[in-house]
Amino acid sequence: MVDTHPFLEDPEGTREAIMQATFKALCEYGYAGLTISRIGEHFEKSKSLLYHHYDSKDELLLDFLSFMLEEFEDPTAADSDRSAADRLEAVFDHALAQDRPEAALELTQAMVELRAQAAHDQRFREHFTDNDAVFRDRLAAIIRSGVESGAFREVDPDQVASFLLATITGAMTQQVTTVESQDRVRAELSRYVETALEK
Amino acid sequence: MVDTHPFLEDPEGTREAIMQATFKALCEYGYAGLTISRIGEHFEKSKSLLYHHYDSKDELLLDFLSFMLEEFEDPTAADSDRSAADRLEAVFDHALAQDRPEAALELTQAMVELRAQAAHDQRFREHFTDNDAVFRDRLAAIIRSGVESGAFREVDPDQVASFLLATITGAMTQQVTTVESQDRVRAELSRYVETALEK
Repeated sequence: MVDTHPFLEDPEGTREAIMQATFKALCEYGYAGLTISRIGEHFEKSKSLLYHHYDSKDELLLDFLSFMLEEFEDPTAADSDRSAADRLEAVFDHALAQDRPEAALELTQAMVELRAQAAHDQRFREHFTDNDAVFRDRLAAIIRSGVESGAFREVDPDQVASFLLATITGAMTQQVTTVESQDRVRAELSRYVETALEK
Repeated sequence: MVDTHPFLEDPEGTREAIMQATFKALCEYGYAGLTISRIGEHFEKSKSLLYHHYDSKDELLLDFLSFMLEEFEDPTAADSDRSAADRLEAVFDHALAQDRPEAALELTQAMVELRAQAAHDQRFREHFTDNDAVFRDRLAAIIRSGVESGAFREVDPDQVASFLLATITGAMTQQVTTVESQDRVRAELSRYVETALEK
């Protein structure tokens, strides 16, 4: 879910410029083809600055992941006066809408590749554990508010949030690793809210 | 879901021996560190046989993925006299049980890494499109039998199957890319069957 940040604005400082160059190089070459030198191709300042700040490509990528998690704004934060069901629908649309902009899809591709590093690299695994906790907590807060308002049944907010996060993570992964549309998943998410959450 | 095959038997022929060597090397080095030469370390016959059969590491890995999909037996096939809900529970346990053997977890790790290649490689994307279709169809067949027997509501079997496949794919991915247990996802899958599928 972090991977819906469009990353389109002009970078403000050096770190932002490095992060944007990293994103562009990641989209162009993928993880396996990525090198600090190739990140430098998208960086207007001196490449030596990159080598000065980072010892390795993975160190830079871990900083990129932290940056993305810090920068990612909660799209549901401004919606606290809307119903819990509406806020969940907004999260689902944000992640799985058919008309997601190309930059958002590229970011999802990059995130799928970076998450895969966690299969063999403890540092990436720690990041994605933290990453998922942030999104799980946001979903749980929405569900808790639905239970408290009486709109939702007495469900376990953490259990429902874990389930929704797994579904969204899986569907976003399939979105960029198959040619299949995720429309049926999107439709069933709404039916789940209606039949398994709402009273 | 293909990634639950334990891959423990002794290989019978050359192709099987190549496939087992590929799996072992993939577990040891991960995708990025994998080379045909390193696959050869786990292959008892001559390494030149590997170069004779495959032009590149990716070609070998695509053959590995096809092999896994062909070999994977449907764990629910023998259960056709059990109820649809029981068969779904068996699928969920197979994919997400807490006590999955180490070899099954290693295979899930390998599959997460190989699926990530599909973000930038059309051939891998075609494979995972086919892969997901196989598992979606199996899930849809179980759900259809539940609808036909009258145990399940009049749901759309393909829509429910897509949703369950996304959830399982996401939870298995999180299983090997975070330190978080997937027990809450597993519990909510059962609650989903009870509240959103069963009459």
